[in-house]
Amino acid sequence: MAKVIYVTGGARSGKSSYALQLAGCYAGRVFLATAEPFDGEMRNRIDRHREERGNAFYTIEEPLYVERALTSLPSGTDVVLLDCLTVWAGNLMHHAETDDAIASRVDALLEALRHPPCDMILVSNEVGMGIVPENVMARRFRDIAGTINQRVAAAATEAWLLCSGIPVRLK
Amino acid sequence: MAKVIYVTGGARSGKSSYALQLAGCYAGRVFLATAEPFDGEMRNRIDRHREERGNAFYTIEEPLYVERALTSLPSGTDVVLLDCLTVWAGNLMHHAETDDAIASRVDALLEALRHPPCDMILVSNEVGMGIVPENVMARRFRDIAGTINQRVAAAATEAWLLCSGIPVRLK
Amino acid sequence: MAKVIYVTGGARSGKSSYALQLAGCYAGRVFLATAEPFDGEMRNRIDRHREERGNAFYTIEEPLYVERALTSLPSGTDVVLLDCLTVWAGNLMHHAETDDAIASRVDALLEALRHPPCDMILVSNEVGMGIVPENVMARRFRDIAGTINQRVAAAATEAWLLCSGIPVRLK
Repeated sequence: MAKVIYVTGGARSGKSSYALQLAGCYAGRVFLATAEPFDGEMRNRIDRHREERGNAFYTIEEPLYVERALTSLPSGTDVVLLDCLTVWAGNLMHHAETDDAIASRVDALLEALRHPPCDMILVSNEVGMGIVPENVMARRFRDIAGTINQRVAAAATEAWLLCSGIPVRLK
Repeated sequence: MAKVIYVTGGARSGKSSYALQLAGCYAGRVFLATAEPFDGEMRNRIDRHREERGNAFYTIEEPLYVERALTSLPSGTDVVLLDCLTVWAGNLMHHAETDDAIASRVDALLEALRHPPCDMILVSNEVGMGIVPENVMARRFRDIAGTINQRVAAAATEAWLLCSGIPVRLK
Repeated sequence: MAKVIYVTGGARSGKSSYALQLAGCYAGRVFLATAEPFDGEMRNRIDRHREERGNAFYTIEEPLYVERALTSLPSGTDVVLLDCLTVWAGNLMHHAETDDAIASRVDALLEALRHPPCDMILVSNEVGMGIVPENVMARRFRDIAGTINQRVAAAATEAWLLCSGIPVRLK
């Protein structure tokens, strides 16, 4: 049975580093990046992160249809590190999808996680522990991201919360 | 000795669902709703939640004097689920009460929790783990809500933090 | 080997109270306050906190060069309680230092924590679990504060997260 490892935490909590460390135990590593290079600064940032990972990972960029990326992995893939679900939530909203359309995209990921092609590590963010945002879009984003977190964490075989760089086992 | 169970978490962390699940172990259930129907949208939302709970709960709406609601429960009540303390904190502020008046309302709840009429489940929110709000009202709200959380959690016999839908035992 | 105890949590989570409680086990106590009295209100607040601590602590105010304060402690100091790292992060930013200058100040603290003059208790804040701030300065602050938290927590011999007043052991 393939492992599905969920890793969450706040901004700068060390969640991506911890996910990279977990992925270090595997040979054939794929990095599934959900960040979308919508401007030059973002493109530079994505490229810099890719350089930092070096040859350790084969990188796939997929801002929306993450479950499709899982159907066309290079042979010899032992683990997929998806970073991150919260950026993916933002992409789903940004592409002006309805709640139903978003729910159906999340369903597709959940379905894929029921029979993953290899071990999976999914990074997410805790975004709901501050004051209620005044901005209605921010509140909707918080709801979508939180719902995705709950569903993926429920489907995971292992879950971690990073706090000040320290991993706390959730399940 | 009656149980006092405190359940906290961020927005969309699964705290209300977990509280409902805990309440499912009891026969005579009362839902003590602190949300105030200050407009039609809110009224609709409250009514929808009430419909979702169906016949499983007897509902009492009490935005301010929650301890009084505990003195007039229907006979056969085995558990009261109060949802939530953070909305209650907002109501206390909204009704323009002074710090002293708010503290005395919180004292009244704490006093009631020392000798609860039945098992209690109290839902709250973590609102203090984001950036310091620029808005002075939001900072005051954060202080009031945080102080209520500390006092109720200290009085509880059991406390849980929900994180991405997963309950973490605090005490 | 001296203990380095890291205590973090959200606003009004009880982290400072818990740190004071931990410090209560020591005889010679120093309070290293990082808050800067930049106006009269702040000066009053700092003085009030100092009065509340009474004679239990010898207080040193040092908004920037915290590691230097550790080299000139009064004789008989058994513990230093630094409150807090997040305010210190804000001070570093406020004094218009570059990222490199900030990193070098953090290096200096970390170096001091490798050979602390006595047991240390360092209080910090979780500030990264809300929505991404729109303000670029707030995002930079969140990054700096989060990086400091990770580095200090990694160097600590013991780490705690306060949640609704309840201490959760992180390591």
